[in-house]
Amino acid sequence: MSSTDDIDALIEMMAKLPGLGPRSARRAVLHLIRKRALLLTPLADVMQTVAATARECLNCGNVGTTDVCDICTSNKRQNGELCVVEDVADLWAMERSGVFKGRYHVLGGTLSALDAVGPEELRIPRLIDRIDAEDVREVILALNATIDGQTTAHYIADQLEGSVTLTTLAQGVPIGGELDYLDDGTITAALRARKPV
Amino acid sequence: MSSTDDIDALIEMMAKLPGLGPRSARRAVLHLIRKRALLLTPLADVMQTVAATARECLNCGNVGTTDVCDICTSNKRQNGELCVVEDVADLWAMERSGVFKGRYHVLGGTLSALDAVGPEELRIPRLIDRIDAEDVREVILALNATIDGQTTAHYIADQLEGSVTLTTLAQGVPIGGELDYLDDGTITAALRARKPV
Ligand SMILES: [Zn+2]
Ligand SMILES: [Zn+2]
Repeated sequence: MSSTDDIDALIEMMAKLPGLGPRSARRAVLHLIRKRALLLTPLADVMQTVAATARECLNCGNVGTTDVCDICTSNKRQNGELCVVEDVADLWAMERSGVFKGRYHVLGGTLSALDAVGPEELRIPRLIDRIDAEDVREVILALNATIDGQTTAHYIADQLEGSVTLTTLAQGVPIGGELDYLDDGTITAALRARKPV
Repeated sequence: MSSTDDIDALIEMMAKLPGLGPRSARRAVLHLIRKRALLLTPLADVMQTVAATARECLNCGNVGTTDVCDICTSNKRQNGELCVVEDVADLWAMERSGVFKGRYHVLGGTLSALDAVGPEELRIPRLIDRIDAEDVREVILALNATIDGQTTAHYIADQLEGSVTLTTLAQGVPIGGELDYLDDGTITAALRARKPV
């Protein structure tokens, strides 16, 4: 493989990332090559480190560098409160708002008959285990306001009914909106005004 | 540095790439972490290779992996024809159209009084050297149809007048348009219909 092929391969790989296309990938790669000592080498290094260390928390599904993540093991988080989100991007969005002090449970998607995604694919059994194991009193369902998100929320509510207080993010989440698109203030308002399911 | 910081550092570096912002960087990093064996490790590897090998061609300014690039050294390119472009992205756009068989000269920008960019910053002296050294008969000015691009084209035309045939890309380049945004067909049409300056 000649190294011009390496540049082409780099562009091709970058172009497949969500949010980038062929044109922005070419721009990004040229930018990186121009500043290769300052940008490309450090970026490659940190990617290699992350590739070697990143993993999903065995408990909650968050992304971290240990088998059980920082949030799950922190003694600064409030015990007994679990916030259920669809994916790690949503967990990060909640954390940026800074208002939630409990712990998380990342489903890794939503139930979907079409895509044959059932409860087992979504860490729902693990969620049920955690209710007992961690003495959870309140589960906040912070799923996206999409049809699949709400279907999943109802399924989980059915499973957990009677064993915990179930709440859901309230005002501020627009119809059809996705959590990760919201500003921190909206998330804060929605969490503060949460109401029983 | 804990490794959660590595993930944050990776997001921050990705967010600074042209075409990406914080949100798409987070999405991209999560995507890479989920498929770390398949995507992140190979991407880090190819970045490291490119960082170690990529350089600017000493002759034309193209990006490659040798002191003088593949296009400059190829004996399949037509001698005596030089296409002058602003940057490497424009050279790549010309190459995708596949219609130009000569060689290139990448200025690395445009003249700009405001930004204090003069001919020396733009490989214009090197362009003038190449006219003699490579027995150039025709120079195609394929600069962007912006004010700075056209100012630069006029400056180069003044410098080269009398020594070579000067042409410019003709029909198909929209007013205010940038070369790298055009489809291959438009570039092909504009090159075929090129006319004397
Ligand atoms: Zn965890
Ligand atoms: Zn070259």
